[in-house]
Amino acid sequence: MTDAPIINRLALIGTGLIGGSIARAARASGAAKTIVATARSPETRKRIRELGFANQVTETNAEAVRDADLVIVSIPVGASGPVAKEIAPNLKPGAILSDVGSVKGSVVRDMSPFVPAGVHFIPAHPVAGTENSGPDAGFAELFVNRWCILTPVQGTEEPAVETLRAFWEKIGANVQVMTPEHHDLVLAITSHLPHLIAYTIVGTANELGEVTESEVLKFSAGGFRDFTRIAASDPTMWRDVFLHNKDAVLEMLGTFNEDLSKLTRAIRRGDGNALFDHFARTRAIRRGIVNIGQDSAVPDFGRQHAPLPMAPIARPYASDDD
Amino acid sequence: MTDAPIINRLALIGTGLIGGSIARAARASGAAKTIVATARSPETRKRIRELGFANQVTETNAEAVRDADLVIVSIPVGASGPVAKEIAPNLKPGAILSDVGSVKGSVVRDMSPFVPAGVHFIPAHPVAGTENSGPDAGFAELFVNRWCILTPVQGTEEPAVETLRAFWEKIGANVQVMTPEHHDLVLAITSHLPHLIAYTIVGTANELGEVTESEVLKFSAGGFRDFTRIAASDPTMWRDVFLHNKDAVLEMLGTFNEDLSKLTRAIRRGDGNALFDHFARTRAIRRGIVNIGQDSAVPDFGRQHAPLPMAPIARPYASDDD
Repeated sequence: MTDAPIINRLALIGTGLIGGSIARAARASGAAKTIVATARSPETRKRIRELGFANQVTETNAEAVRDADLVIVSIPVGASGPVAKEIAPNLKPGAILSDVGSVKGSVVRDMSPFVPAGVHFIPAHPVAGTENSGPDAGFAELFVNRWCILTPVQGTEEPAVETLRAFWEKIGANVQVMTPEHHDLVLAITSHLPHLIAYTIVGTANELGEVTESEVLKFSAGGFRDFTRIAASDPTMWRDVFLHNKDAVLEMLGTFNEDLSKLTRAIRRGDGNALFDHFARTRAIRRGIVNIGQDSAVPDFGRQHAPLPMAPIARPYASDDD
Repeated sequence: MTDAPIINRLALIGTGLIGGSIARAARASGAAKTIVATARSPETRKRIRELGFANQVTETNAEAVRDADLVIVSIPVGASGPVAKEIAPNLKPGAILSDVGSVKGSVVRDMSPFVPAGVHFIPAHPVAGTENSGPDAGFAELFVNRWCILTPVQGTEEPAVETLRAFWEKIGANVQVMTPEHHDLVLAITSHLPHLIAYTIVGTANELGEVTESEVLKFSAGGFRDFTRIAASDPTMWRDVFLHNKDAVLEMLGTFNEDLSKLTRAIRRGDGNALFDHFARTRAIRRGIVNIGQDSAVPDFGRQHAPLPMAPIARPYASDDD
C-alpha cells in the first residue's frame, strides 16, 4: 500500500452517514487528494462546510462531478436514475462512477442508460452503517474490517475495478466482487429481511391493546430493544430498498415464513427437542461471526453498565466451607 | 437506603448468568450478609469456589436452603417444580422463596403446591441478561437500571414483598409488581417473540441453497449479526420459556404474522407510502427506549471500530471554496 492518494479528485453526491463517512475516511487515510461534496439542501451544504470534511462544496450535482476522477453517489437508491441523468454530461472521460446503494440490480438498470462511453461504471455497496443518518452521523472508521461489494457490469475494464478496490481498501474495507443479482440475494438475507422483521415486530409491539407502550419500553431489555436499533434506520433509504429489491426479499420472506411455521408448530405441540436442536444450531452461527471478526465477543455488544449504587468498599469474603 | 444487609442468609439455587450475577451484586452492595450457593454438577460447584462469590457452597439444593432467609431459584423454568419439591422440607418458616424465571404463570403453577405454610413465595423476573451463560458469565452490575418484576400470588404478606423489593433495589434494579398472567403477556412481546424471530431468521440464513454460510457470516454487518446475538442465548432456558409460555407467545405471534403480511403486501404492491409511514413510526419507539434509559444513544450499541490502517497524521484541509 502506497501513501500516494489513490484518487486525485473525489466527488461525493450525498453526504449522509455513508457519504460523510467516505469523506472523513478518504481524508484521514489520504485516499483522495481533493474532495468535492454536494447535497440537495442548502442547510446540508452549510453543515458540510462547518464540518469541514470536503475541500469544496458545490451547489449542484452536475458541478460537483466536473473533472472528478471518482464519483460516488450516496443517496437512496430510488434517486439513482435521475441523478445519473443529471451528472452524465459533466462526467470526465476515464472517470469512475460508483455508488453505495444497498440494492445493485436496480442501480445497474437505472443508472447504466445514462453512463457516457469512456466512463467506468462500477456499482458498489459497503456493508456497514449505524442507525443514524445525516452529515453529522458519519465517522472515518465506519468501513474498517467491513466488506465492500463491487458489482461491475460485463465489459468493465479491470484497471478501473482495481482502482476502486484500492480506494476502498485504503479506507479500511475488504473488497469482494460479485454479480448484481447475487449481491441482491445475499443482502436480502443478511440485511433486508432482518430490517423488515425488525420494522414489523417494533410496529407490532407498539399497537397492542393488552400491553401498554410504556411497558414495552420499560421491559425492552428482554431482547426487544435490540430490534429497535435497526428499526430506527432511515425510512427513505429503507423504503427504496424494499421497493427495489422486491423479488429477492419476497423469496427470502417465503423461506423465513416456512421456518417460522415449523418453530410455531414445535411450540404448539410442546416438542422440546425440536426447539432445543434449533437453538443449539443458531448459537454456533454467532460464534462464526465473532470468529471472522464481523462482531465482537464482548457480551451484549459491549453495552455499558452503570456501577452499583452506593457500593461499599469490596471486602474479602472468608469462605467458611473449605 | 441503609447500609445494613437486607438479607441475613441468601441461598442461591443455580449460579449461571443470573444466579451468579445476583451473588456478585449482593456481595458488592452488601445486600446479603452470607451467601450460600449450590449447583447440580460438581464442576460448577468447584468453579463457584474458585470464583469466590459465595461464602459457602453446598452439595445439594436441600442443604443450601437450610436457615436461609431468602432463597432464589435461578434455573430453567422447566425444573421449577422438582426443585421446589426437593427444597420444601428444609425451608425455614418466615423465609422468602423466589425465582428469576422468564415465565411466571407456570412457575406459580409448578412451585406453589410445594411451598410450606409460613414461607412467603414471591416469584420474580429480573429483565436483564446477556447472550452468555454459566457461572463465569455473571457480573455485579447486570441489574443496574434494569427492571425486576415481582408477581406475588394472592394473600402474600406485604412486608415480605417489601423485603424482596428492597433486596432488588439494593442491587440496582427498579421494581414493579404485576400479576403472573400480565407478566407473561408483556414478556411475550418484549422478550419471547423477539427471541423466536431471531432464532428463526438465523436458522433460515443457515440453510439457504443460493447463499453460502460464508457469505452470510461475511456480510452480516448489514443487520443480521444483531439477531445472532440473542439467537446465541442458552438453548435449554429458551426451550423451557417457549414450552411454558405457549399461549401468550402464540397470541403475539398471530399479531406479528398479520403485521408482517401487511408489510409484505406493501412491498409486493410497491406501496412506498405505507412502508415509509411504518418505518417513520418505529423510529420514534427507539427514541422512547433511549429516553427512559433502557438503551444507550451511542450508535450501533457502542460497538467499537478499529482505527484506519496506516492513517497519516491528519493535515488541516484548506477549503478552497470560501
